[in-house]
Amino acid sequence: MFISFVGAGNVAWHLSQALEQAGHHIAEVYSRDLRNARLLAKQLYDTQPVADLNFAESEAELIILAVSDDALAAVVSQLVLPENCTVVHTSGTKSLEDLRQLVALYSDISAQVGVFYPLQTFSKTVEIDFSEIPLCVEATDRPTANLLIDLAHQISNVVYLMSSEERRVLHVAAVFACNFSNHLLAISKRILDAEQLEFDLLKPLINETIRKALNAPDPAAVQTGPARRNDRQTMHQHLDYLHQFPSWQGLYELLSDDIVRLGKS
Amino acid sequence: MFISFVGAGNVAWHLSQALEQAGHHIAEVYSRDLRNARLLAKQLYDTQPVADLNFAESEAELIILAVSDDALAAVVSQLVLPENCTVVHTSGTKSLEDLRQLVALYSDISAQVGVFYPLQTFSKTVEIDFSEIPLCVEATDRPTANLLIDLAHQISNVVYLMSSEERRVLHVAAVFACNFSNHLLAISKRILDAEQLEFDLLKPLINETIRKALNAPDPAAVQTGPARRNDRQTMHQHLDYLHQFPSWQGLYELLSDDIVRLGKS
Repeated sequence: MFISFVGAGNVAWHLSQALEQAGHHIAEVYSRDLRNARLLAKQLYDTQPVADLNFAESEAELIILAVSDDALAAVVSQLVLPENCTVVHTSGTKSLEDLRQLVALYSDISAQVGVFYPLQTFSKTVEIDFSEIPLCVEATDRPTANLLIDLAHQISNVVYLMSSEERRVLHVAAVFACNFSNHLLAISKRILDAEQLEFDLLKPLINETIRKALNAPDPAAVQTGPARRNDRQTMHQHLDYLHQFPSWQGLYELLSDDIVRLGKS
Repeated sequence: MFISFVGAGNVAWHLSQALEQAGHHIAEVYSRDLRNARLLAKQLYDTQPVADLNFAESEAELIILAVSDDALAAVVSQLVLPENCTVVHTSGTKSLEDLRQLVALYSDISAQVGVFYPLQTFSKTVEIDFSEIPLCVEATDRPTANLLIDLAHQISNVVYLMSSEERRVLHVAAVFACNFSNHLLAISKRILDAEQLEFDLLKPLINETIRKALNAPDPAAVQTGPARRNDRQTMHQHLDYLHQFPSWQGLYELLSDDIVRLGKS
């Protein structure tokens, strides 16, 4: 299949290489900054770096919009599509309908529309095994859905056909499990920094906590700590200490109350 | 060295075996329930299981109180010590002074007092490499501190002499990094459950998030998500969805505000 990418960021970087390894031809890579498009094209076999969104003469059968949510509308408004093409975005938050409306609004040429969302966080410098990454796909029509499912299975063992509404819930859950957990680690480091204690001290415990939580039938079943034991004395001591960090004192209280509540239910 | 354990729970289970492997003799294991003491003694070479806290005739030079914080006072109140003995607890929250006062109050025989705190979460069924586990030690006098540091180095590569105050801060940080992160995973699972989505979907992303956070100089440097981008539209959508889970709506708001705040500072 001939595939072109709009965007040369972290998602395009890994996804284009995975698709090429699966036997597809990456025809073009677009970036607003041609240098970025060139950098990615160099990683690929025979790919044209471009800084123009006119794909009218492109051989692409599939155009993958791997750009930030904020840039999606601007990109589609300038996009000129070839005939008989499928357009997908790779966003966890934008709906299929968002993209369908944008394409209907701006494009003179009709296209099949879909979503091809890899549920992972990417960095260009970190090698990643695509076969383990869940791919969530969706499309406006069944043939396009089947095309995307088939494509997804060629690079990943974990493929889900998922509605935009389900993907939105998945994203809310990911914010709790990943973005917020990361922030708790950042808070933890700042608390240790304030006493010149090393964050490294906590790393074995953090790794083991996550390992246990993901191997348990439910992370709640392996919850530990003062809130789980409803150990009021320790919690009061901790809240006293956190007096110097008012917003973390509030967080400590809310999270502890919620652990106590969940432990009772 | 002759060492006895009071407690046959998860900490005693792993610590006694690590100390025996380092060449020490575990003389006795006490548990309120003799069956638990027997179970652990079976794992060891030549250890007497006991259900009596009278250690007057024991050969133990070191008694390790590996009991829950709540049980510590009751245990020390019944403990009869041998002559020339060191007593330590394994708690992250109890201070050295707590133990010193309990021993002074209840024991006719004076003893050196210390803390021997392994910073890890243990399960009897999960094998663990003790050499990676940070051991935080503290004592009332320098010879005892040196004895505990030496002992700690025999089973772990990561040994810290740490005051009770520092250990308390470390524990606050661990609550954020571990107990609260675990709870966020539990919330995440419940959100997915409500839509019949599988928690397994998120596991690769969770693992990669933690890996990134622990390899970065600071987890805040690799923070991602709508709050980090200050993407108000997505946050509003998520808060709308969380309307059905009021306490998680509150948590989402507080955590997002704090990420925005930290991103600006």
